[in-house]
Amino acid sequence: MYFGESMKIYERIRELSRKYGLRNEEKMILGTDGSVTNLLEILFEGDVIVKTINQKIVDDVNYRTVILEVNDIPLVYATSKTPFKNIEHGLRESIKRDLLSADIPIGRILKMHNLETRREIIDIDVKEVDKEVRKLLKTDRKILPQRTYNIIHNNKILMQITEIFNVGEHL
Amino acid sequence: MYFGESMKIYERIRELSRKYGLRNEEKMILGTDGSVTNLLEILFEGDVIVKTINQKIVDDVNYRTVILEVNDIPLVYATSKTPFKNIEHGLRESIKRDLLSADIPIGRILKMHNLETRREIIDIDVKEVDKEVRKLLKTDRKILPQRTYNIIHNNKILMQITEIFNVGEHL
Repeated sequence: MYFGESMKIYERIRELSRKYGLRNEEKMILGTDGSVTNLLEILFEGDVIVKTINQKIVDDVNYRTVILEVNDIPLVYATSKTPFKNIEHGLRESIKRDLLSADIPIGRILKMHNLETRREIIDIDVKEVDKEVRKLLKTDRKILPQRTYNIIHNNKILMQITEIFNVGEHL
Repeated sequence: MYFGESMKIYERIRELSRKYGLRNEEKMILGTDGSVTNLLEILFEGDVIVKTINQKIVDDVNYRTVILEVNDIPLVYATSKTPFKNIEHGLRESIKRDLLSADIPIGRILKMHNLETRREIIDIDVKEVDKEVRKLLKTDRKILPQRTYNIIHNNKILMQITEIFNVGEHL
């Protein structure tokens, strides 16, 4: 999927919404180029808490799976890939440490360190999720909204993130 | 107003929402650190069009007042201040031209040029707007949600923007 002149973000979301029915809040979270953490905190009126499900390093890439919760409600299942080579140069040690640490939401890390970035959305979809994801999100819904995007800093991909949202049933 | 540990963005918005009643979509637009243009396009399913009300240069600062519309509905009254000295160095000519031009929404300019930035929210409020603003937004509402924020690039303020939203009555 490429977003630009050929397919705009709002057109993709409109298409998915007509097919699957999405609430406005879900559409906005799916399409934002800002912090999802921030929007979840505004919607659910509490701090986002990160629960780490899994973390491993393979071929100099840090893979992490987390659940984002607000007020004990699991709202997002997120997986991230952080290639070490892109954070080796030009980032302060404290930022690297936070990026690889397990318990701070990425939106908060960028903000704490005043990092200038852009988010490049690669894919937005509504599709089936596997049993483990449903269990972690405590839902029976078999298809959920999801998206994949890159966080870019100094023209390098700091992190690629895929988020699966179970927000609609808690609004 | 300073947002950080002392007062979080979601706490400020919760406070305003209890007092004035805000819809979720309004809260998200008020608090996002991403592109407002993008969120308006997702919500109202159309391209944001910029109508320039006013533009002047005083003491090397470019002042601009615009209305953002989607599908002929005026949704945002926005004023911006762009100090020339901060865009003189380090920005390509094409970006400067777009930043000072009258008809491209800022969110789209940043995206077109792959500009890495951060948004720093200074103030969020719900308060009285004057007659001219109400007229341009085609509303009788005397108090409206609004916010002021800086768009920062290379640690300099590219633009300070104040947005007054009349989104709620069109949802």
